[in-house]
Amino acid sequence: MVELARNAAGRRVPVIVNGCQQIPYLGIGKYQARGHKAGPPVRSNKDYPENGDKRLPDLQTALLRCGLCDGMVISNHHHLRDGDRVALMALEAAAKLGAKDLMWFPSASFPAQKNAIDLMQSGVIHHIEGSMNGPLGDYCTQGKMRGMGVLRSHGGRWQAIQDGEVHIDIAIIAAPTADPFGNADGSHGRSACGSLGFALADSMYADFVIAVTDNLVPFPCIPWQIQGNNVDCVVEVDSIGDPAQIISGTTQITRSPDRLQIAEFVARFLRDSGIMRNGFSFQAGAGGIALAFVDYLRRMMKEDGVKARFVRGGSTRYLVEMLQEGLTDYILDGQTFDLDAVKSIASDPRHVPTSPLTSYNYHGKGNFASMVDAVVLGATEVDVNFNGNVVTHSDGRLLHGIGGWQNCLFAGCSILAIPSFRDRIPVIVDEVTTLTGPGELIDVVVTERGIAINPDRQDLVDAVKGSSLPIRPIQDIKAEVERICGGKPAKPKLGDRPVAVVKWVDGTVLDTVWQLG
Amino acid sequence: MVELARNAAGRRVPVIVNGCQQIPYLGIGKYQARGHKAGPPVRSNKDYPENGDKRLPDLQTALLRCGLCDGMVISNHHHLRDGDRVALMALEAAAKLGAKDLMWFPSASFPAQKNAIDLMQSGVIHHIEGSMNGPLGDYCTQGKMRGMGVLRSHGGRWQAIQDGEVHIDIAIIAAPTADPFGNADGSHGRSACGSLGFALADSMYADFVIAVTDNLVPFPCIPWQIQGNNVDCVVEVDSIGDPAQIISGTTQITRSPDRLQIAEFVARFLRDSGIMRNGFSFQAGAGGIALAFVDYLRRMMKEDGVKARFVRGGSTRYLVEMLQEGLTDYILDGQTFDLDAVKSIASDPRHVPTSPLTSYNYHGKGNFASMVDAVVLGATEVDVNFNGNVVTHSDGRLLHGIGGWQNCLFAGCSILAIPSFRDRIPVIVDEVTTLTGPGELIDVVVTERGIAINPDRQDLVDAVKGSSLPIRPIQDIKAEVERICGGKPAKPKLGDRPVAVVKWVDGTVLDTVWQLG
Repeated sequence: MVELARNAAGRRVPVIVNGCQQIPYLGIGKYQARGHKAGPPVRSNKDYPENGDKRLPDLQTALLRCGLCDGMVISNHHHLRDGDRVALMALEAAAKLGAKDLMWFPSASFPAQKNAIDLMQSGVIHHIEGSMNGPLGDYCTQGKMRGMGVLRSHGGRWQAIQDGEVHIDIAIIAAPTADPFGNADGSHGRSACGSLGFALADSMYADFVIAVTDNLVPFPCIPWQIQGNNVDCVVEVDSIGDPAQIISGTTQITRSPDRLQIAEFVARFLRDSGIMRNGFSFQAGAGGIALAFVDYLRRMMKEDGVKARFVRGGSTRYLVEMLQEGLTDYILDGQTFDLDAVKSIASDPRHVPTSPLTSYNYHGKGNFASMVDAVVLGATEVDVNFNGNVVTHSDGRLLHGIGGWQNCLFAGCSILAIPSFRDRIPVIVDEVTTLTGPGELIDVVVTERGIAINPDRQDLVDAVKGSSLPIRPIQDIKAEVERICGGKPAKPKLGDRPVAVVKWVDGTVLDTVWQLG
Repeated sequence: MVELARNAAGRRVPVIVNGCQQIPYLGIGKYQARGHKAGPPVRSNKDYPENGDKRLPDLQTALLRCGLCDGMVISNHHHLRDGDRVALMALEAAAKLGAKDLMWFPSASFPAQKNAIDLMQSGVIHHIEGSMNGPLGDYCTQGKMRGMGVLRSHGGRWQAIQDGEVHIDIAIIAAPTADPFGNADGSHGRSACGSLGFALADSMYADFVIAVTDNLVPFPCIPWQIQGNNVDCVVEVDSIGDPAQIISGTTQITRSPDRLQIAEFVARFLRDSGIMRNGFSFQAGAGGIALAFVDYLRRMMKEDGVKARFVRGGSTRYLVEMLQEGLTDYILDGQTFDLDAVKSIASDPRHVPTSPLTSYNYHGKGNFASMVDAVVLGATEVDVNFNGNVVTHSDGRLLHGIGGWQNCLFAGCSILAIPSFRDRIPVIVDEVTTLTGPGELIDVVVTERGIAINPDRQDLVDAVKGSSLPIRPIQDIKAEVERICGGKPAKPKLGDRPVAVVKWVDGTVLDTVWQLG
């Protein structure tokens, strides 16, 4: 039986996860970070080739060179998204070498990597710590994973590596371009994905680093988003991924009238509240609503003659066009979602790659997220106290990662832009199935039926007084939706065995994902 | 009495320096690095302003905020060279706050900072670890400094910080451009100096970091050579330096016929030995001979239709012109020496700033220095075993820092380009006054009277066989020079008290600088 404690959000969380003592969530800004950052081993040039050529013939040789053994932590990044071939290639190479009980530590996993389930069943992978999108998350909530899943935000992943909570033995970096020294870049090559920021911490803190590329160039690979000085060996492969899947499919503006309505409400909220003003900043992702919002906002900015100082990606052609039209000075970009954005980040010095350190790490000397005026996010559920859930569905299944979502909540105004119901299941609930973001950080919930402002943000309530926006109490919207859907969502059937935990940005445990009953 | 040991180079070195146990030099590639990199304290965003505005009114307030107290280590970078005003400003602010016994840890100090002598005499500064150019070095060899000077190469300074040998309490970064969050850039602003690479380790590893700027821009400062995520506070001042002195005075081609002869010999050596070939690389600094060499080599490359893959700075307009003429794909730049170079690094993506990590750190997974085909360096002395000295003169006075000199010796072909005598004092000697670079890493000595090739490099001897270059044994050149100068240089009058040590790139002690007798 796993020992549980009740944390400051009232949630029951395990006190030990995968053998490590945990700190239950204490409240926002309540945990006092202490100690020192992790110090990776000191290496010496004398043990690396003087001519800088670190190439090895294949991944198995590279893993052996890095001392692969049972129980190690193997990390990957997810910039190639559902097109990535490198992670499975590496794990399968480890399997061929007879490795067992690995902890796989991807920045996110995708449906294309569902063969990792076979590797868990055969004992090669012990468990996964990292976002599990789709089948791997489902596998986890079925209770089949040996260890506990640990879900972290992008910033939380940096924090965990930096603070030494997760020690990476071998980091494997899929590099759209690299040189024999290990300098690597994501913005060029046939498998270009733009930024490589999610792999940066891995390259800095892992004991060993392997760069895997299908586009080897002579030294120097410019720019070097990953520095060869941190890389142990370089492996050339035929293909690191499927370019058609590297570029996300979610980069089309929604055509749903309800979702277009949401997007328009969000844009008008920013305008009418005065957030949209010269020098302001915003962040929006790549979902259909977010893209439509950017399109509405862009028109409003043009109408009012307003220019942003910076916008934050995930970047798409909509942000790139804003940059090119002079509607923003800069794009500060964490992920690059379409080909226009890849081209822009490769050639426009105003389109700047960022990393989870600059943008999201909570255990630094500040980060960019809290400097953003407004952020537009999604959610699977939000409750009447404005608590948000992005990882599980109302049926308790774990299907999504946290991404930068938790980190972004620190923006000046955090907005959940969500349809009021999906598949006739209300999205506004009494209590979220899995607490991913505390309500005190969620300022506005925008649905097609109206806009609810967190009562803690009287300043925002005042700011839109007199506007024609349908501002309503969240309880009102919820009641209307329940009438339409025929009541509240069914309670999920959950067992009492924790299968994963949701970490807060400071490394404390915010909530538990339970095995399905 | 200081206890001394004889190291692998046969030099007597102190076993304890400033209270720390030392490892005497063991030979090239003989010291096995161990342990882990330094881990600076984990911080939390909760202790920094959410809006990212870290400005404080002045340096005294900033030093207090950083907990200034007696005995702390205060660091500065030297990209502003003899024009820097920030280092003294910070040390004087510390003095006003009553601080005592500070260790000053500049990446280099210059004559403009000679007031640091007053601060040593008044007890504010205990001692200096870092390059001491001119009066501060002289003060050191007079035996007046309380602690021992520690001379490190640029790479050795990174190594010492990274390995935890030097723990920086407060780093002060002169920033030609910065934003209120602390992102900082050297390539823009009226005090632009190009790269800020020498300050990078300080910003990453110091407990506290203060950015000082005379050109504050709204967030984000692009590019961010220094990341605000590592910066504690930002101080605006009227001027961080004197632009006329920031840009080095040593960027004119020599007019001396002897030195032009040396430069031409070096260029011909590269051509005739076959080092100058398509895709090759070289490094040359900013002295008069080096510039003339670049000019000769450029002409030869054009004549022979040869293009370099990369050239390394210290960059000047001569390298910039090569880039613009298509004679090299890239400039990989550690320091920016003139206005053309500053303009180029600010605007040309092929002109790439580097840091001592990428270029010089010996305790990494390789670095750029050993990938450079040929490097052209100076020296104050070279001896018949090809050992080199760059820090002291033949009279024993400490007048120069090591810079990247030691690190560059790992290039494929390291060339000392030196006049055979200066002020009628021979430069080729029986034994260097201070061993700064072991002879086994010095391949060629080029003087106006002939070229000596290290007998260990039979490949180079063979490569220039049949060329019209005046290849001669080093003893021959030495004998000729002694005839001209009327004998060997007078032996310096040295006491038996060590006043400084020269570190090798791996942190071991290579030699001792002695108090003048």
